[in-house]
Amino acid sequence: MKKLVIAYSGGLDTSYCAVKLSKKYKVHAVTVNTGGFTADDIKNIESNAYKMGVTTYKCIDAVSSFYEKVVKYLVYGNVLKNNTYPLSVSAERIIQAIEIIEYAKSINAEFIAHGSTGAGNDQVRFDMIFQTLAPHIGIITPIRDEKLTRQEEIDYLKSEGINMPWEKAKYSVNKGLWGTSVGGEETLTSTMPLPESAYPSQLVKEGYQKVVLTFNKGNLVAVNGKIDDPEKCIELLNSFATKYAIGRDIHVGDTIVGIKGRVGFEAAAALITIKAHHLLEKHTLTKWQLQHKEYLASFYGMHLHEGQYLDPVMRNIEAFLESSQKNVSGSVFVTLRPYHFTLDGVSSPHDLMNAKFGSYGEENKVWTADDAKGFIKILGNQNKIYQQVNNDEL
Amino acid sequence: MKKLVIAYSGGLDTSYCAVKLSKKYKVHAVTVNTGGFTADDIKNIESNAYKMGVTTYKCIDAVSSFYEKVVKYLVYGNVLKNNTYPLSVSAERIIQAIEIIEYAKSINAEFIAHGSTGAGNDQVRFDMIFQTLAPHIGIITPIRDEKLTRQEEIDYLKSEGINMPWEKAKYSVNKGLWGTSVGGEETLTSTMPLPESAYPSQLVKEGYQKVVLTFNKGNLVAVNGKIDDPEKCIELLNSFATKYAIGRDIHVGDTIVGIKGRVGFEAAAALITIKAHHLLEKHTLTKWQLQHKEYLASFYGMHLHEGQYLDPVMRNIEAFLESSQKNVSGSVFVTLRPYHFTLDGVSSPHDLMNAKFGSYGEENKVWTADDAKGFIKILGNQNKIYQQVNNDEL
Amino acid sequence: MKKLVIAYSGGLDTSYCAVKLSKKYKVHAVTVNTGGFTADDIKNIESNAYKMGVTTYKCIDAVSSFYEKVVKYLVYGNVLKNNTYPLSVSAERIIQAIEIIEYAKSINAEFIAHGSTGAGNDQVRFDMIFQTLAPHIGIITPIRDEKLTRQEEIDYLKSEGINMPWEKAKYSVNKGLWGTSVGGEETLTSTMPLPESAYPSQLVKEGYQKVVLTFNKGNLVAVNGKIDDPEKCIELLNSFATKYAIGRDIHVGDTIVGIKGRVGFEAAAALITIKAHHLLEKHTLTKWQLQHKEYLASFYGMHLHEGQYLDPVMRNIEAFLESSQKNVSGSVFVTLRPYHFTLDGVSSPHDLMNAKFGSYGEENKVWTADDAKGFIKILGNQNKIYQQVNNDEL
Amino acid sequence: MKKLVIAYSGGLDTSYCAVKLSKKYKVHAVTVNTGGFTADDIKNIESNAYKMGVTTYKCIDAVSSFYEKVVKYLVYGNVLKNNTYPLSVSAERIIQAIEIIEYAKSINAEFIAHGSTGAGNDQVRFDMIFQTLAPHIGIITPIRDEKLTRQEEIDYLKSEGINMPWEKAKYSVNKGLWGTSVGGEETLTSTMPLPESAYPSQLVKEGYQKVVLTFNKGNLVAVNGKIDDPEKCIELLNSFATKYAIGRDIHVGDTIVGIKGRVGFEAAAALITIKAHHLLEKHTLTKWQLQHKEYLASFYGMHLHEGQYLDPVMRNIEAFLESSQKNVSGSVFVTLRPYHFTLDGVSSPHDLMNAKFGSYGEENKVWTADDAKGFIKILGNQNKIYQQVNNDEL
Repeated sequence: MKKLVIAYSGGLDTSYCAVKLSKKYKVHAVTVNTGGFTADDIKNIESNAYKMGVTTYKCIDAVSSFYEKVVKYLVYGNVLKNNTYPLSVSAERIIQAIEIIEYAKSINAEFIAHGSTGAGNDQVRFDMIFQTLAPHIGIITPIRDEKLTRQEEIDYLKSEGINMPWEKAKYSVNKGLWGTSVGGEETLTSTMPLPESAYPSQLVKEGYQKVVLTFNKGNLVAVNGKIDDPEKCIELLNSFATKYAIGRDIHVGDTIVGIKGRVGFEAAAALITIKAHHLLEKHTLTKWQLQHKEYLASFYGMHLHEGQYLDPVMRNIEAFLESSQKNVSGSVFVTLRPYHFTLDGVSSPHDLMNAKFGSYGEENKVWTADDAKGFIKILGNQNKIYQQVNNDEL
Repeated sequence: MKKLVIAYSGGLDTSYCAVKLSKKYKVHAVTVNTGGFTADDIKNIESNAYKMGVTTYKCIDAVSSFYEKVVKYLVYGNVLKNNTYPLSVSAERIIQAIEIIEYAKSINAEFIAHGSTGAGNDQVRFDMIFQTLAPHIGIITPIRDEKLTRQEEIDYLKSEGINMPWEKAKYSVNKGLWGTSVGGEETLTSTMPLPESAYPSQLVKEGYQKVVLTFNKGNLVAVNGKIDDPEKCIELLNSFATKYAIGRDIHVGDTIVGIKGRVGFEAAAALITIKAHHLLEKHTLTKWQLQHKEYLASFYGMHLHEGQYLDPVMRNIEAFLESSQKNVSGSVFVTLRPYHFTLDGVSSPHDLMNAKFGSYGEENKVWTADDAKGFIKILGNQNKIYQQVNNDEL
Repeated sequence: MKKLVIAYSGGLDTSYCAVKLSKKYKVHAVTVNTGGFTADDIKNIESNAYKMGVTTYKCIDAVSSFYEKVVKYLVYGNVLKNNTYPLSVSAERIIQAIEIIEYAKSINAEFIAHGSTGAGNDQVRFDMIFQTLAPHIGIITPIRDEKLTRQEEIDYLKSEGINMPWEKAKYSVNKGLWGTSVGGEETLTSTMPLPESAYPSQLVKEGYQKVVLTFNKGNLVAVNGKIDDPEKCIELLNSFATKYAIGRDIHVGDTIVGIKGRVGFEAAAALITIKAHHLLEKHTLTKWQLQHKEYLASFYGMHLHEGQYLDPVMRNIEAFLESSQKNVSGSVFVTLRPYHFTLDGVSSPHDLMNAKFGSYGEENKVWTADDAKGFIKILGNQNKIYQQVNNDEL
Repeated sequence: MKKLVIAYSGGLDTSYCAVKLSKKYKVHAVTVNTGGFTADDIKNIESNAYKMGVTTYKCIDAVSSFYEKVVKYLVYGNVLKNNTYPLSVSAERIIQAIEIIEYAKSINAEFIAHGSTGAGNDQVRFDMIFQTLAPHIGIITPIRDEKLTRQEEIDYLKSEGINMPWEKAKYSVNKGLWGTSVGGEETLTSTMPLPESAYPSQLVKEGYQKVVLTFNKGNLVAVNGKIDDPEKCIELLNSFATKYAIGRDIHVGDTIVGIKGRVGFEAAAALITIKAHHLLEKHTLTKWQLQHKEYLASFYGMHLHEGQYLDPVMRNIEAFLESSQKNVSGSVFVTLRPYHFTLDGVSSPHDLMNAKFGSYGEENKVWTADDAKGFIKILGNQNKIYQQVNNDEL
């Protein structure tokens, strides 16, 4: 039998695929953990995988490579899709696709299977990355091709002796380092919010908590002075913030297939990290650094979301972003409160807001009234000439 | 004596100017109300103005022209400077400068005076607009030129028989339709937040309140079904939201004179209107409309902030923004809560998220699995060719 | 029999389609003339169409609508794809698709056929516009579906009694108002230029010729003082310039299907008009108008090229461009020479280069040395602060 | 006497400054050669400098650092200001300012002098770079401050015993590696071109000449197979091209001081290098690399032109550009002809136009007609939904 690698999550769809494909291929199941699974989850998934008849099972711990290859740049770029969504799931899919196809190549698999439908973004992300990095490996997608109902899948599994409780959860939840997405009947409408109970974290703390986030060249390297890898810092920050039910919102955006999609999410650490990082940048970067970063990062997020991570322009933008972080070091003071947080201030040796050079609106120390008048006179030259030549009415 | 128009607010600086200039000129004091003054405030300012020796006093009600000439486009463009600040004060200054210089021209004044210092943004905005629209009118700025202390100004006024209580407020507050700015000793540092008490509105309501905002071609035309002029709707919305102490934040940004500035603000209605409007756009505009609006609006905000409102490129961007609002009509459902608000959903006849054309992630109705595969295959062409030609390592 | 409209050019492919489809449908052939066909050409095409068995034939003269709907904005935007190609053919296809589908709707056709292959851009442009404007009309594409060789098509036509000389021209040429494209074996390589003889126009004039182009709000309205419709002016200019063999180049670019394409072209009038228009803009627009026009127009060209003319963002960009042309009026002096042309200067009442306000590098009339020093001191503030804070090495 | 460094070119203005300042300071004259001076020129300048009374004279050969710090990025970015001007002089001024201020620091000078007027761009470039890199060094600008006529300067020099022929050349010419600028009475008007004789190079060759330009990661590393440093290759290419009088044009643009300026230039090597490099990029970069490079490079050119080279955003853009050049290697075939040149084609191992993956418009090898139909169907989704929802009229 030919070797096939399957992206396996343990849900109904990938279980159906695993059983079905094991009849025809030597199936190697793989789960890529981008921060959403505990050790217990993985043990469970593994034992189930073998019940489905797979030949081997492997869990790839990709939290650190997820941070290094993707999340890092989303922080550098303060990327929020449509000014709202930290791209939690979109970003994970990319690293999952890369890890899986690298694994498939390493074991000389001839086929690769995933459980995406034909309706969404994930099929595009998986297929494009697979086809680009391994054009010789065939892609098999039973769910997309067969369009079965959940009941048909369950019946098939039963007929194969797999009896598990497959009841559909009211909300489909996808968890990872950079946030948790939540879909349900409300998100299929334009009008309805998700109920509070749909969100994974609930408010369990009152009052407020102060947190100090320390960045080094754009990376979160300490929380309250506790130095750790950025991905660990993000997890620690998240553990504080979810107690306040911070970071919920609904994202509405354009899918790769041209329709609008709506999805709830909870991403406390991602939102706080990005907003704190951005504040530190406002103090340490020049006006035009801020301006061009925004333009490039917005495109970076869109292109990543659309599965175009392998376009070399992404490497070029990453070079820009990396270069821009040279002085983005210092601490940001944050206060967590029920459902929201505030940024209180920053402290940085690279702070360009420096009383030595004059304070805004206060007495200026480095120029005179006459300097200011000369500045304004010349700064206004072009508009003045324009108005004298054209005499536009307002 | 020659005619001089003075931008008069009734504070210490402009009072000093009014008294001093009245010795040499026939002074016509003018206040431009962009939503920050009540009828009583104005009555007070007027009576004080005459005490300073001015020949005439005039209050120009500019709320409606402020909305039509500036605020409207800030809503169309969802403009938040550095992703935070609705440009409350920057925007006001523009319309104030325009109204004042038009008034000065209408009465054939030979001079115009304002109370700005030489350290900040306002001098640039005022001077540039005055010089552009009336190059023949001389500009006089005693505060910038003389660099007096508050005490010296007070002493001068006393010597002229003006005895008023000029104690400096702990926080300097500037109020208008589009928000209130708050400056104080904390905003001169990078590290400290403003205390709660520094904000003009305090939390006086618990629980939550639902609000329906209705937009017509991008303009807020009704709140909870009550139809009114956009500026009235904004004021009504603000009266609801300030009870929840919504809309506070601190803006850090680049001043026109090249230094960093930090200022607190409270702008409940501005923030809610912009975020609600943006959500409606996410449902009604195409991907590339959203993308290019963001790029242009970000520049529009920066250029407006820097006093470049009269650059004709601003009219060109306004034409783009106006054109983009054609279908931005519908209702947005908002919930107000202590210190924050949530956007619950929208309802619009122009909603592109329409189950008729397929739902994201659900069964697709208008294309097949094979269509999707063809789409992905060709969409990925360039990256696949690139990788085969160059064989980049990840 | 059901009604079918076919986009008919009289070439081998569309002749094959016409004959074949006439067996099954009532075929209405239509040619959209965007400036490439003479009256004689059309007479010929018409008589051939009937030989192929079509029911009716119609030629739609679209030169003027081509100018109004598309070319005008390419001039306003100085659009040259990849800084080289005036989008001659891409632009035509859009207007052809629109005219044809409108015709099909007007006669209640149930099908529409075109002769595009599955390899190129045209299929995308035609299909997308047809599907968007008339989703109920079926699209039939025999050439794309059947993948016949030329010989097979010729044999079929012969078998149907159509004996015409179908020898393949060495170069495939597509002519229209905005330029002529030329493809051949050289353009299938990356290395080879087209031979001189492949270009439709040959050098027939020596020496030089002066031409005055007059623009009104961005439109070319007179050539050497002869006032006419812009499309007529373009044709007149072209008749002058082709004698000098001006306007040849090779375009290399990204196709919609992700591969690189290369095509020769000759577009004398398009290139001269755009360059002259751009020069006039450099004199009449402000710095930021020039900057943002460039950004938007570059996207406009790309999106048009990719068949996305119906994206409403195109209407928004057109609104920007239209607004920017308010003062782009005046004359441009051009000299035509063998193979190239020079722009000699402009004359415009809206010229912002106006000695009244100072001449570059010469004595300044409106500011002093001290004004300049104040200007420079403050303009350099941010970089100075940055350098003092960070002490970067060069 | 205090030490003063003067930027000395040997012209009337800097000679006047040298003589005058030598009375009060110990003057160290320095010329920065960015490719415009021959060894004989320098010998002459040096001997004249000593006649003016300077203490020391030094010529800094900056051709190579000019290439490495500035020109390289102008090539990577295909930078042509306003799509015309390679920034020949603007770019030189930056490196001259940097070299001079570094020299002044190295000898502990307390003052630095330059001969700019108060009307143009150069004063801004010099002052800003001096002030940023050495805020403690005072800037002295006699020409700007004293506003003398040429005659007054000549008279002063005569009174000091300096009798040299200072007749004003009809055209002021500035020569360097990246081009020669030419100003004269015509360039002070909007309407008149420069006469042929004003350009430094005259047509001395008929017929044509083939040239092969070889690039390595974006740098010109060989001309006709002769490998050399990029700056040497540029000089060699220039020696070929100027015989054909290639590369003349007139630049019209916005000065830093807000007025429009017009200047002639001749920059054969710069234009050919940029256009050849760009063509190579069209073959080797992806669509979005080309798109974003254009956006960033346009800003880079504008910011450089305006003297903002030290803004750290320039380093960020350079990182992007550098990263984008990874595969921009290969040869470009160029033909030189009287007054113009043509790009004939390229050859590169990184060429993405590769018949293996299908040829544009020809039979496609890697996808089927059905793939194409699926692609188009989904690509058009959003516009189709938009049109069905909104039913816009064209």
